[in-house]
Amino acid sequence: MSIQRHNTPLALGSVKSDSYSDPSPPSAVDRYMVNKLLVLSGRPRIEVQLWDDSRFQACSETPIVTMRINSRNALRSLIFQNEIGFGDCYTEGQVEIVGDLIEFLCEVFWAKKNAADESGVLLKVLSGVAKQKVRENTLQGSHSNIHHHYDLGNDFYTLWLDDQMQYTCAYFPTPELTIEQAQAAKMEHVCRKLMLKPGQSVVEAGCGWGGLARYMAVNHGVKVKSYNISHQQIVYATECAQAQGLSDQVTYIEDDYRNITGEYDVFVSVGMLEHVGIKHYTQLGGVVDRCLKADGRALIHSIGRNAPELMSAWIEKRIFPGAYPPTIREMMDIVEPYNFSVLDIENLRLHYAETLRHWLYRFDENESAVLDMFDARFVRAWRLYLAGSIAAFLTGSLQLFQMVFARGLDNSVPMTREHLYRDGGI
Amino acid sequence: MSIQRHNTPLALGSVKSDSYSDPSPPSAVDRYMVNKLLVLSGRPRIEVQLWDDSRFQACSETPIVTMRINSRNALRSLIFQNEIGFGDCYTEGQVEIVGDLIEFLCEVFWAKKNAADESGVLLKVLSGVAKQKVRENTLQGSHSNIHHHYDLGNDFYTLWLDDQMQYTCAYFPTPELTIEQAQAAKMEHVCRKLMLKPGQSVVEAGCGWGGLARYMAVNHGVKVKSYNISHQQIVYATECAQAQGLSDQVTYIEDDYRNITGEYDVFVSVGMLEHVGIKHYTQLGGVVDRCLKADGRALIHSIGRNAPELMSAWIEKRIFPGAYPPTIREMMDIVEPYNFSVLDIENLRLHYAETLRHWLYRFDENESAVLDMFDARFVRAWRLYLAGSIAAFLTGSLQLFQMVFARGLDNSVPMTREHLYRDGGI
Repeated sequence: MSIQRHNTPLALGSVKSDSYSDPSPPSAVDRYMVNKLLVLSGRPRIEVQLWDDSRFQACSETPIVTMRINSRNALRSLIFQNEIGFGDCYTEGQVEIVGDLIEFLCEVFWAKKNAADESGVLLKVLSGVAKQKVRENTLQGSHSNIHHHYDLGNDFYTLWLDDQMQYTCAYFPTPELTIEQAQAAKMEHVCRKLMLKPGQSVVEAGCGWGGLARYMAVNHGVKVKSYNISHQQIVYATECAQAQGLSDQVTYIEDDYRNITGEYDVFVSVGMLEHVGIKHYTQLGGVVDRCLKADGRALIHSIGRNAPELMSAWIEKRIFPGAYPPTIREMMDIVEPYNFSVLDIENLRLHYAETLRHWLYRFDENESAVLDMFDARFVRAWRLYLAGSIAAFLTGSLQLFQMVFARGLDNSVPMTREHLYRDGGI
Repeated sequence: MSIQRHNTPLALGSVKSDSYSDPSPPSAVDRYMVNKLLVLSGRPRIEVQLWDDSRFQACSETPIVTMRINSRNALRSLIFQNEIGFGDCYTEGQVEIVGDLIEFLCEVFWAKKNAADESGVLLKVLSGVAKQKVRENTLQGSHSNIHHHYDLGNDFYTLWLDDQMQYTCAYFPTPELTIEQAQAAKMEHVCRKLMLKPGQSVVEAGCGWGGLARYMAVNHGVKVKSYNISHQQIVYATECAQAQGLSDQVTYIEDDYRNITGEYDVFVSVGMLEHVGIKHYTQLGGVVDRCLKADGRALIHSIGRNAPELMSAWIEKRIFPGAYPPTIREMMDIVEPYNFSVLDIENLRLHYAETLRHWLYRFDENESAVLDMFDARFVRAWRLYLAGSIAAFLTGSLQLFQMVFARGLDNSVPMTREHLYRDGGI
């Protein structure tokens, strides 16, 4: 499988690391630990280079990439702190990847299935099997979790997202689309699934920077109320709607989805479920039940899993507090208690790998601007997060589910999905 | 909602019932029980007529249909034996429906949601909330359960199924299709979901009379091995394949799906899961895992539910022993343990109502032939089963799920589902 469909020239590892050498050369224990690390990780095609330039490998094939460990502390951190250790050491420049970061991460995911001993270490990198506690998504907890990530500054996200600031999986019906085109295709795909008609009312739970609401208003003539608890996103979204003269059609509300009021033709939520927490799925379903008309349509779009597994502990700790990608089974907690009928589930996993490639490419192109806003540690952490996500989607560790549902008694549901693919397959 | 989309002239209730009058007129207790029955059933728009022609109703609106109860025993059976009592009394002609049987059954399903007291009776008719024990689907149990239904005689099924003897939900991309066209459309839809290519190998679990296997061989140039434990179906299927000169391409094997051997590009199962039993789903997933190539596709098509509920007790007892329609959550037992990735779930609920309408129409047209083969009780029981199934799909009590899945590491999965809808939406 080629994992570089676009052959994007990623400038990986180009940030100068805070590298330093450990004065004492690797001991027999250090060497034993490196070998153990590689064997327990399923003998990935990875070469390890220690701080004295000594090299190790446990695979029979030629290694495809080198992981350089710059200190004894970093080695210990990899062994004892698993993925958090790896993520933090990479952030600090104590672990460096010489070669393609995405290929390295894919190799770690692939090797995982060959690992005989589940107590291995590298196999836990970005895979989230370490014991961890996901931060709770109470009303206050959600606010703090969301603030951590989404309020990093609109200027930062502007550097590498598309012009409508869509921070969710795009849709590439053909591979040559730009990220702008693919995000528009995603929004159109969602609108078609929801069978929007002019004059209908839509409520959106978790609107990001508000691009979908504006798209719906402009292209489908609907009225949208969008909820979000990120202050900076709401400010940005409202300004955009005003600038586009959409203030009558689109209202952005800085509030939790649990406080949604009113009754609507359509409920939509793109990329919020990951932040809801499975304990709250039934509550979310109750919100939909409360606000959806008898012949209404609902769509929930979320990162997911084939089988239950916590979010990468490092990503949950450093990047996305409170995040959890559900399985389809877990998503059923939203619909089952309310006699909702699932009409359609589509898996767009590879579209997210493609989306993330575009983001990472722009992120790398704007590295100096990100450095000016933050620092080298931030750049490395975010590069690892974006590259790790690409690897997770490419290796099937993460999925992307779009689920459409309606009330169980509603017979006005469409007979086929052909309407999604008219006029050239968007 | 109009439940008669085609306005099929159903000759319901035209079989002469073994009606007889109870000598003793209804007592105060009888009348109390009738009222209780109607109130606890959610006050459906149904009039009850007792054996002395006295009439009862508990709804504020005009009743749309009359249920005639011909004896005290029948009334007691309705009260104390719930849906089994109703089904058996209808079969015996002790309960008759004056008016449209499907409308009566839909009304019962709809009223159910208004029923304040879940201990009601009519509300349990065909809804399966009564405590019941589903017969086990061990190797021997499955054989006996399947024999009960599918070995009624090919001549019987020939009377009312399409020319390819498809006894599963058809696909009506447009409503005017004949049942033959809609079954061909269903098979093509399944083949497209599986992305069949000439020369590929397919294994089918539960092949009925073998129509899908022959369709795949003729139209997509694949080799198919089809498993089924119904002797009569296997004999019929094999003869058809020979007559069509397909013996080199299609092999029908009289054996349980658990005994499938070999490795295939495609696993397909249309309408078998209902007979597998949820206890055996993980085992079924294991069979797919054992026999599917690394880049293989699998499709499972099954009747289902929005929330867990046993099959109608009467249908389970008299028509389909061992049957159980799963929820999507329950279906996940097939895929989760094996890192299968669900690519697509489509709900074809209303297509099954349409399919059953066609079957019931032909069944009624061939009533005298069925009478010659069996008797009036059989005719009434099967009419109730077919009409009840129409009502169950129309009222959302039953769903029809088509689930496509592939291995979690397979990146050759299609990016979109546009290929399903090329050339006119089939």
